[in-house]
Amino acid sequence: MTSSIDAGWRQQLYQWIEQRWVQQAVIGVIIANAAILGLETVPRVNEPYGDLLYTLDRLCLTIFVVELTVAMIAMGPARFFRDPWRVFDFVVVGIALVPATGAFSVLRSLRVLRVLRLVSASPRMRKVVAALLQAIPGLSSIATLLLLIFYVAAVMSTKLFGEHFPEWFGSIGASMYTLFQVMTLESWSMGIVRPILAEFPYAWLFFVPFIMVATFTILNLFIAVIVEAMQSQAQAAQAEQMHEIEALAEEKESALHRDIDKLRDEIRELKAILAQQR
Amino acid sequence: MTSSIDAGWRQQLYQWIEQRWVQQAVIGVIIANAAILGLETVPRVNEPYGDLLYTLDRLCLTIFVVELTVAMIAMGPARFFRDPWRVFDFVVVGIALVPATGAFSVLRSLRVLRVLRLVSASPRMRKVVAALLQAIPGLSSIATLLLLIFYVAAVMSTKLFGEHFPEWFGSIGASMYTLFQVMTLESWSMGIVRPILAEFPYAWLFFVPFIMVATFTILNLFIAVIVEAMQSQAQAAQAEQMHEIEALAEEKESALHRDIDKLRDEIRELKAILAQQR
Amino acid sequence: MTSSIDAGWRQQLYQWIEQRWVQQAVIGVIIANAAILGLETVPRVNEPYGDLLYTLDRLCLTIFVVELTVAMIAMGPARFFRDPWRVFDFVVVGIALVPATGAFSVLRSLRVLRVLRLVSASPRMRKVVAALLQAIPGLSSIATLLLLIFYVAAVMSTKLFGEHFPEWFGSIGASMYTLFQVMTLESWSMGIVRPILAEFPYAWLFFVPFIMVATFTILNLFIAVIVEAMQSQAQAAQAEQMHEIEALAEEKESALHRDIDKLRDEIRELKAILAQQR
Amino acid sequence: MTSSIDAGWRQQLYQWIEQRWVQQAVIGVIIANAAILGLETVPRVNEPYGDLLYTLDRLCLTIFVVELTVAMIAMGPARFFRDPWRVFDFVVVGIALVPATGAFSVLRSLRVLRVLRLVSASPRMRKVVAALLQAIPGLSSIATLLLLIFYVAAVMSTKLFGEHFPEWFGSIGASMYTLFQVMTLESWSMGIVRPILAEFPYAWLFFVPFIMVATFTILNLFIAVIVEAMQSQAQAAQAEQMHEIEALAEEKESALHRDIDKLRDEIRELKAILAQQR
Repeated sequence: MTSSIDAGWRQQLYQWIEQRWVQQAVIGVIIANAAILGLETVPRVNEPYGDLLYTLDRLCLTIFVVELTVAMIAMGPARFFRDPWRVFDFVVVGIALVPATGAFSVLRSLRVLRVLRLVSASPRMRKVVAALLQAIPGLSSIATLLLLIFYVAAVMSTKLFGEHFPEWFGSIGASMYTLFQVMTLESWSMGIVRPILAEFPYAWLFFVPFIMVATFTILNLFIAVIVEAMQSQAQAAQAEQMHEIEALAEEKESALHRDIDKLRDEIRELKAILAQQR
Repeated sequence: MTSSIDAGWRQQLYQWIEQRWVQQAVIGVIIANAAILGLETVPRVNEPYGDLLYTLDRLCLTIFVVELTVAMIAMGPARFFRDPWRVFDFVVVGIALVPATGAFSVLRSLRVLRVLRLVSASPRMRKVVAALLQAIPGLSSIATLLLLIFYVAAVMSTKLFGEHFPEWFGSIGASMYTLFQVMTLESWSMGIVRPILAEFPYAWLFFVPFIMVATFTILNLFIAVIVEAMQSQAQAAQAEQMHEIEALAEEKESALHRDIDKLRDEIRELKAILAQQR
Repeated sequence: MTSSIDAGWRQQLYQWIEQRWVQQAVIGVIIANAAILGLETVPRVNEPYGDLLYTLDRLCLTIFVVELTVAMIAMGPARFFRDPWRVFDFVVVGIALVPATGAFSVLRSLRVLRVLRLVSASPRMRKVVAALLQAIPGLSSIATLLLLIFYVAAVMSTKLFGEHFPEWFGSIGASMYTLFQVMTLESWSMGIVRPILAEFPYAWLFFVPFIMVATFTILNLFIAVIVEAMQSQAQAAQAEQMHEIEALAEEKESALHRDIDKLRDEIRELKAILAQQR
Repeated sequence: MTSSIDAGWRQQLYQWIEQRWVQQAVIGVIIANAAILGLETVPRVNEPYGDLLYTLDRLCLTIFVVELTVAMIAMGPARFFRDPWRVFDFVVVGIALVPATGAFSVLRSLRVLRVLRLVSASPRMRKVVAALLQAIPGLSSIATLLLLIFYVAAVMSTKLFGEHFPEWFGSIGASMYTLFQVMTLESWSMGIVRPILAEFPYAWLFFVPFIMVATFTILNLFIAVIVEAMQSQAQAAQAEQMHEIEALAEEKESALHRDIDKLRDEIRELKAILAQQR
């Protein structure tokens, strides 16, 4: 599609932005931006210097936009959007460009997410996050089960307690939030279940099993992560041990091989003697 | 008992209901039913369309009843009731057929349990649940111990604190609920033990050891699950390693075997020469 | 010391009390006693039948006293008191014989501990408890460290906050209880630290590090238990694997050995031929 | 730098303070000091004997200062300050020598930290603490990630909720403390999020994901510690197994070697016979 001359020019641009000092300059700008966004929340600093902070923040944003545009040109959009870290950068920087007025004024607070670019900009942090995310696919089926349990429990509790306790169980959404709170064991008894027990004396038949099933499922989710982590490590150790065993078997076999070879030499000598005798 | 012609007819029926599209149609009906049951809790939808939702729910139920009846005929009752997933389906669908009036009106909320058929209908979810349940037998003896500790602690706390704190420790049931709450560490101190300490200054001698013993036992319950999960995985890995080692030993032995065979050939040659000489 | 005739008589008595039906009868009495002690807490039962329940409880107690006395005679006091389960039985039954009046009236509630004899009477439960207790020695050094941290933190918090918050930090005992509550994370912030922060704005410098150090230490205590459990299991698996490897090596070696033996036979034959030729 | 005569004199001094009875005397003084500092918090003891306790505490402090000075002379400052335990002792004893007046009066409570010298004085406790600290480097990258998440969440929540809930989210510091509380799940819903939900109905979109991300990250921090602990143990077990396998292979190889040697002897005998025949 693109001529090879064009590709060469892009290649050079890509190499330029991947240079160590460029990368570190970007990290520097991210840290500066983090400090600026933090200082904006300190009234003693923000009141006199608010405009300056805003200007500096816009400057950081401009640098990011330029950097990402250069990267997008250098990599080409197809390759750019296939790299999940670049997409992350794109989204996190792009939030600040959406006009944040009216219903979207909350987007202004999301600007801080830009600081998370520190993760995508530092190879070491990228590796940590990749390791964390790696555990998630193995959890998907237990997570689906948990979601199903939550949905069933939410519908049931809405029907059972929704009328008397609308604040906690008035709708499926409210019920799911309350059940999430119950699952984290936060004030589940004194805050939620005891008041309900005063109205419905058998409500514990719903909540105690729910807590047991939910925490047992969560426990198994955790165990899946632990077992996954162990497994990959144990496999590496075992592969290494097999190499050592193979090397050992090789060594012993060739020692015996040499022994047998010497024996054959002696037999050949014998044969030679006999041939002489003939 | 049943003639082989009859058995053949049943076999065909069974193959029909086990077809992929039949199974997926059932999953579709379950998901539709889950949505219907969820919509029933939304007043804005339920008020105008309540009758429609009820009719649709009855329709789903009818489909389930037909499906289960066909399965029961195809499998025969003996085989049907030996399959725990079929029994689960039977109970969960059967609940809706019990007349839910008066004291049984709570059964109407239990209709939502039908949504859990998603687990029994999807082979992948079945496997996850089977894996979770697999851990339970290994826990039975620690669970019995925990129950014993709970019973003893409940009787003791009822006798010690029941008179002064009837809401929390008025009966064995109330005590067990409160001790369960204490074990989950929910408001155990500010909510329960500090008020008791004001009356009985040595009550901590009961509660602090109880928390330690109960959480330590629960911890060991968790560890039993983890060790169980690791063990089955480690055994598989070890069996695989033994296969590799065996293959390696086999290979090295047959290499040496071939060496020795060649030696024997040379000796036989020698023998032949000598025989010629004679 | 005791004549051998006496020893024989004791031996027979011991065998008698160790019979299966005697053991199971004792378990039956323990369960009955558990039910009786439970029923005593139910006013609807205790009010009309309180005297009967008391008589039945005394009867159970008498059976236990007789059983333990017989065991003590059969085993001899030295052997009896060296068996920790027997000592447990002795203490737990003995509590009921202490006159429970005045300051000791609380001992009456301790009678329920007798139900824990179910553990010492059932071999399966004994094994579970023994496995739980086995983990404890490996925890002693971390537990000592935790105790030291608690003592230092208790003295510090008493000096820092004791004057303003006497209920929570008035004495070392009160501080230790409060710090235990903080370590279990129960209402640590809303209940304890936020009120203190209102008075001492830097109090978080004490509590946040305390929570981190204490929970990290507790975590390591847990990990010690897990690693211990894994280790004993991994060792067993490894020993088994070594046996398999040894058997395999043995098999391969003797196969080669037989090969070489056959070779030697052929050489001997050669020698015989040569000897004939001479 | 120092003449060898001087070095010899220092060496002797060092050997003297490393003597068993000197070490144990120091441990004795630490325990005594712990008791004294504890007794100071008991009004019934401190009121009549406060001066005595203060004098005894000063005496203990003097002993520590002398001990550390001797150690510093014996080891030389360079070697002294390179030993982290000595630095710990130095800091913990040194605190008491800072004049504790005015703003520094809180330092008086820090005197209790001296009791932690029990850890540095007992080789067994040193090992436990060293094992605990060993896990920390492996946690640094996840801890950095957690800190980043906290910073971003703190700035966001300050901007979003700071105006309406100044007590909880008034500044970045307040937000970080509140988010730490939320992460420990203490009163996160009833205490913090429900009141916020009344004002901002979509606040759960911030808090529920925060709880999930933070606890999942903390979980992975824990898992890193567990895997680390297992790994070092598994490596030791595997190294031991490799030794056994090597010894086994060695044994089998030399058995076969001897077999082949015997064969060679027979062949040589043959050769000798043939040589004779020639």
